[in-house]
Amino acid sequence: MATKVSSGNDPWSAWSSSKSGNWDSTDGWGAKPEGAAAQRNTSNNWDTAFGHPQAYQGPATAGDDDDWDEDWDDPKAAAPYFKDSEAAEAGAAQRGNSRAGSSSMKLPLNKFPGFAKPGMEQYLLAKQLAKPKEKIPIIVGDYGPMWVYPTSTFDCVVADPRKGSKMYGLKSYIEYQLTPTNTNRSVNHRYKHFDWLYERLLVKFGSAIPIPSLPDKQVTGRFEEEFIKMRMERLQAWVTRMCRHPVISESEVFQQFLNFRDEKEWKTGKRKAEKDELVGVMIFSTMEPEAPDLDLLEIEQKCDAVGKFTKAMDDGVKELLTVGQEHWKRCTGPLPKEYQKIGKALQSLATVFSSSGYQGETDLNAAITEAGKTYEEIAGLVAEQPKKDLHFLMECNHEYKGFLGCFPDIIGAHKAAIEKVKESDKLVATSKITPQDKQNMVKRVGTMSYALQAEMNHFHSNRIYDYNSVIRLYLEQQVQFYETIAEKLRQALGRFPVM
Amino acid sequence: MATKVSSGNDPWSAWSSSKSGNWDSTDGWGAKPEGAAAQRNTSNNWDTAFGHPQAYQGPATAGDDDDWDEDWDDPKAAAPYFKDSEAAEAGAAQRGNSRAGSSSMKLPLNKFPGFAKPGMEQYLLAKQLAKPKEKIPIIVGDYGPMWVYPTSTFDCVVADPRKGSKMYGLKSYIEYQLTPTNTNRSVNHRYKHFDWLYERLLVKFGSAIPIPSLPDKQVTGRFEEEFIKMRMERLQAWVTRMCRHPVISESEVFQQFLNFRDEKEWKTGKRKAEKDELVGVMIFSTMEPEAPDLDLLEIEQKCDAVGKFTKAMDDGVKELLTVGQEHWKRCTGPLPKEYQKIGKALQSLATVFSSSGYQGETDLNAAITEAGKTYEEIAGLVAEQPKKDLHFLMECNHEYKGFLGCFPDIIGAHKAAIEKVKESDKLVATSKITPQDKQNMVKRVGTMSYALQAEMNHFHSNRIYDYNSVIRLYLEQQVQFYETIAEKLRQALGRFPVM
Repeated sequence: MATKVSSGNDPWSAWSSSKSGNWDSTDGWGAKPEGAAAQRNTSNNWDTAFGHPQAYQGPATAGDDDDWDEDWDDPKAAAPYFKDSEAAEAGAAQRGNSRAGSSSMKLPLNKFPGFAKPGMEQYLLAKQLAKPKEKIPIIVGDYGPMWVYPTSTFDCVVADPRKGSKMYGLKSYIEYQLTPTNTNRSVNHRYKHFDWLYERLLVKFGSAIPIPSLPDKQVTGRFEEEFIKMRMERLQAWVTRMCRHPVISESEVFQQFLNFRDEKEWKTGKRKAEKDELVGVMIFSTMEPEAPDLDLLEIEQKCDAVGKFTKAMDDGVKELLTVGQEHWKRCTGPLPKEYQKIGKALQSLATVFSSSGYQGETDLNAAITEAGKTYEEIAGLVAEQPKKDLHFLMECNHEYKGFLGCFPDIIGAHKAAIEKVKESDKLVATSKITPQDKQNMVKRVGTMSYALQAEMNHFHSNRIYDYNSVIRLYLEQQVQFYETIAEKLRQALGRFPVM
Repeated sequence: MATKVSSGNDPWSAWSSSKSGNWDSTDGWGAKPEGAAAQRNTSNNWDTAFGHPQAYQGPATAGDDDDWDEDWDDPKAAAPYFKDSEAAEAGAAQRGNSRAGSSSMKLPLNKFPGFAKPGMEQYLLAKQLAKPKEKIPIIVGDYGPMWVYPTSTFDCVVADPRKGSKMYGLKSYIEYQLTPTNTNRSVNHRYKHFDWLYERLLVKFGSAIPIPSLPDKQVTGRFEEEFIKMRMERLQAWVTRMCRHPVISESEVFQQFLNFRDEKEWKTGKRKAEKDELVGVMIFSTMEPEAPDLDLLEIEQKCDAVGKFTKAMDDGVKELLTVGQEHWKRCTGPLPKEYQKIGKALQSLATVFSSSGYQGETDLNAAITEAGKTYEEIAGLVAEQPKKDLHFLMECNHEYKGFLGCFPDIIGAHKAAIEKVKESDKLVATSKITPQDKQNMVKRVGTMSYALQAEMNHFHSNRIYDYNSVIRLYLEQQVQFYETIAEKLRQALGRFPVM
């Protein structure tokens, strides 16, 4: 169907070798460190002169105009997450590698070296799972398993960044104003706070829910103004997407991010979130599907189906992005140039004609000149059109590419759990675990499956809405575009004398 | 204004060095033999895979499926035209070089070596010009000097070529059927007869009237069917153009070409035409302007103005041809490909979507599929459009390029005559010629000027009509084209469910 776009880091490459051992590796940390988060950072190959401005390019580098140190009042807060309790190193690691190494890779050491995904062993095999304070219900509706959608929803408006400063103006940084539509009370956040929020969400929910990367922080190279505008749009889209998710929007970390009242509350909330132990695969322990137990075959089938679909959609989305980029280049480069040349050639001819000395051709020459100018106008319209239609189609596909890039991780976790259950018979036979332990495992993997299905329902429902909207918009704009050109040409035609 | 297209043989290169001695050369035969006729054979750079089929490429080669010998029952008929009275050589020369060396170059030796253009000396200095049987009147109307247009005009329909044969089928050739609209009686001519007619017209009228080349005889390479169709169109255009000219349409040679009743009449007519001595510059001796004498300054000014205009228009026409060819290539190659890719990418996506297992998206996916197919249809429309609009604009410009390529010759003859008049004072002073001789010269150059002005009026009047028509047609087609696309997209849009 689609030709795979060769991008540097293909999230699907590890995944499609489909060895059950993908997530098991002797170093105890999991598969290739380039796995999860780096895969999410796949650049989208748009950084060309004529192309769409750059997407997310990689982690923020340390030592930019923000001073990270101040935000980490207690570096030890990071300690439980690292094998190495050297806080400074932790701080530095966190600063420098907040994305290069996924936090999910640096989470607590596993007791059983075979379990790569943090919390996998704990989740599957703990005798009793602690009753979580926060519960994430899953119900079964007309379309199958679903998250529970809140009765009242909210969005959050991200306003243009402005410069803030501290230390009497010695340090300055860019602040974004966020205004939730339910409170109308604004909060300010620097970009690195978004980075932090992304980390938290990824760590907490990333095994169940696709958390796409943030737009690029650094604005490099030319078209700076365009990039800033683009990044704002994408940050807004990201925030809106989080607000639209029934689980994420109601989560404590997200709520606090949007509703903290003062610096103290912000710092307290931060520390609390960083200490949260119900992260990684343990998130599933907060879920309670009101649904019958699933058998392993069904669980595996559903998991495979999701893997297959998300991979195929990833291909399809990339095909559309590739073709869209080519089209963007053509529409903003060679094509308008050609219309310009046609326009100029017609005007040249009219100028020559005007020098003939022959009477009675003034009207004709004026008409030819106007036709030439019309083609120059058309050139302008052609060059500007992609911003009105193709842009949104590209943005939508870009966003979904981000989502889809999260699934190898999610599917990987599910498959790893399924494999563990498959191996559990052996463990029962060798009395490593009890039959009740195995039963628990099946039930818990069943919970994971329900969560996956609920998330897929959410994903599909949004996908359908989003693609319907964006393709409609594209076609509406295209219709207007061609009609506008036809009208201009009709006007140009009307100037020609009838002979 | 325009960037000059670099074509192999630029008719303007000899002309723009504007030395009065252009037409004088020590060999007595005139300037560069590649001058006139070869310049007319400028290929139009269209022979590319995506481009417009080839235009005229050069003279017919000897030894094709027609046997020239039979048409030259009396090779000596060619003799008066050649210094070398060797008939066989004349025959061979005529066969092989009917265009490579312009007949105007091989016409009677001049008595005065300084006169290059055949008949120039005779025309300017003969004591008494024989009263010609055929007279070409020039009158002065509202727009200045004009040919006298016949009250009833005619066109001539050129029908598709068919195979004819002789010698009991041993020899076969392609015949065209010509049907003048005033007689409705058809005659048949092989392509070489057209070549012959072209030669005759060029020789007889070429110093006063632009006689453009015929379309290419040989059909080479790929797209043979397209070429044959193109050539037919161009042959028809050429014939129509001749019918439209008040002088050429009424000329004996043209009339005989269209109205001969049998083979005998054809051969008799051919010989008569070949023996015609009122050729080259002597054609002006058949013209009688009913108008006051002109002074040399005015004559020179008018001549320069024509040279300037035709050169400028040649540049403008070439600019349009160049840009049109690029556009043709783009519209029949890369652009449709891109629309196809867009179409296919949309359909791919719809296919993926259909595999989601999610209910309630059938309509959406059908709509996306149809949108994809619509873009494939649009690709087809884009690829086919140039044949409907750009084609005619190109053909018109191509035709005018042919006309304009004739002017260096015409202007050259006029300038040479003007130079001779300028030198005549000296000749009077040295008693080489009498004052009456000089007066005759001025009057005769005045006749040439009136002829040039009459021809320019004809040229301009046609130019205005032709360009008005073809640009109108182009714009009309373009309007329809864009409206069609808009309508198709609107239909595609209508299939999307409203959510």
